[in-house]
Amino acid sequence: MLKNLSTYSNRGMGLENDINATNEYYLQYDIAVIYKKPTAVTIHKAEYPGPHQAIIKEAYFKTPSTTDYNGVYKGKYIDFEAKETKSKTSFPLSNIHAHQIKHLNLITKHGGIGFIIVRFTTLNETYLLFADVLDKYIKSTDAKSIPYSYFKEYGYLIKEKYAPRLNYIEIIDKYGGIYE
Amino acid sequence: MLKNLSTYSNRGMGLENDINATNEYYLQYDIAVIYKKPTAVTIHKAEYPGPHQAIIKEAYFKTPSTTDYNGVYKGKYIDFEAKETKSKTSFPLSNIHAHQIKHLNLITKHGGIGFIIVRFTTLNETYLLFADVLDKYIKSTDAKSIPYSYFKEYGYLIKEKYAPRLNYIEIIDKYGGIYE
Repeated sequence: MLKNLSTYSNRGMGLENDINATNEYYLQYDIAVIYKKPTAVTIHKAEYPGPHQAIIKEAYFKTPSTTDYNGVYKGKYIDFEAKETKSKTSFPLSNIHAHQIKHLNLITKHGGIGFIIVRFTTLNETYLLFADVLDKYIKSTDAKSIPYSYFKEYGYLIKEKYAPRLNYIEIIDKYGGIYE
Repeated sequence: MLKNLSTYSNRGMGLENDINATNEYYLQYDIAVIYKKPTAVTIHKAEYPGPHQAIIKEAYFKTPSTTDYNGVYKGKYIDFEAKETKSKTSFPLSNIHAHQIKHLNLITKHGGIGFIIVRFTTLNETYLLFADVLDKYIKSTDAKSIPYSYFKEYGYLIKEKYAPRLNYIEIIDKYGGIYE
């Protein structure tokens, strides 16, 4: 697994594990169906030792065109990206690709629920920031990072507990515009 | 690209290309945001020649846990799998993994729009079959394939044209339960 390959690819695994465990919880308790997409790779060489066997011998990581997670909650389309930062004061925007932000804006436009989940690892705090609020910030400034204070003011702190580890659905229920 | 690797991996590329072109059309004309997920691979060996460079040296195709395509249309979650068959009389169920059918049933249960798109290549006809109808058939029989007649009766023929090549959204609009 990628997990064991190097510290380079290990970045952000704590948050990723928490989100995966949370999504498994949602699946198990029939709350939502949300998955992480497979890592996008471009395959250059493969061998076929048998009719149903294939070994990839040369491949490269691709820049993702969308976000990492998507799925369904109460019929609604959910779409988000999750990132960690060690900084205590701001989240560097270089962590998210420009086309991922464009993608999240499109999701909002089409009536889906788009957001980012950002963990400040040193502070041990994880925030959900909706895509429209993220976009508003980006359009208002030339700054290359989002201040921690912006998350505190316009984002939502996701409580961490044993299960589900990171209950972001609770925030969507309260503030995501799903009323039933 | 996988496309050029072998005839083995070439299976179903005609339909896949048509769906990808259709999804690009939907994106371009701001109709829907629907993507094919990356092919799931398990990476066993990778090399890191530079700090931001990675070459995958050994990897294997994974059995997918979900379907190939998902996205958002009018706020609703869309999820489907697409398959081709050369048979003129039936679609072999071995083409779809059991957990993909289970996944599609979950999507329906959670208010999403799940379906399969099946092309009978010899007949040059492509059908959309909603997940609930697919499930009903599977639960009613021990047969290992779905007769062509079932698609004709309970599915919807997707018209093929220049652009969009395979307008499956038209069928969702009419029969997918989205009323606005």
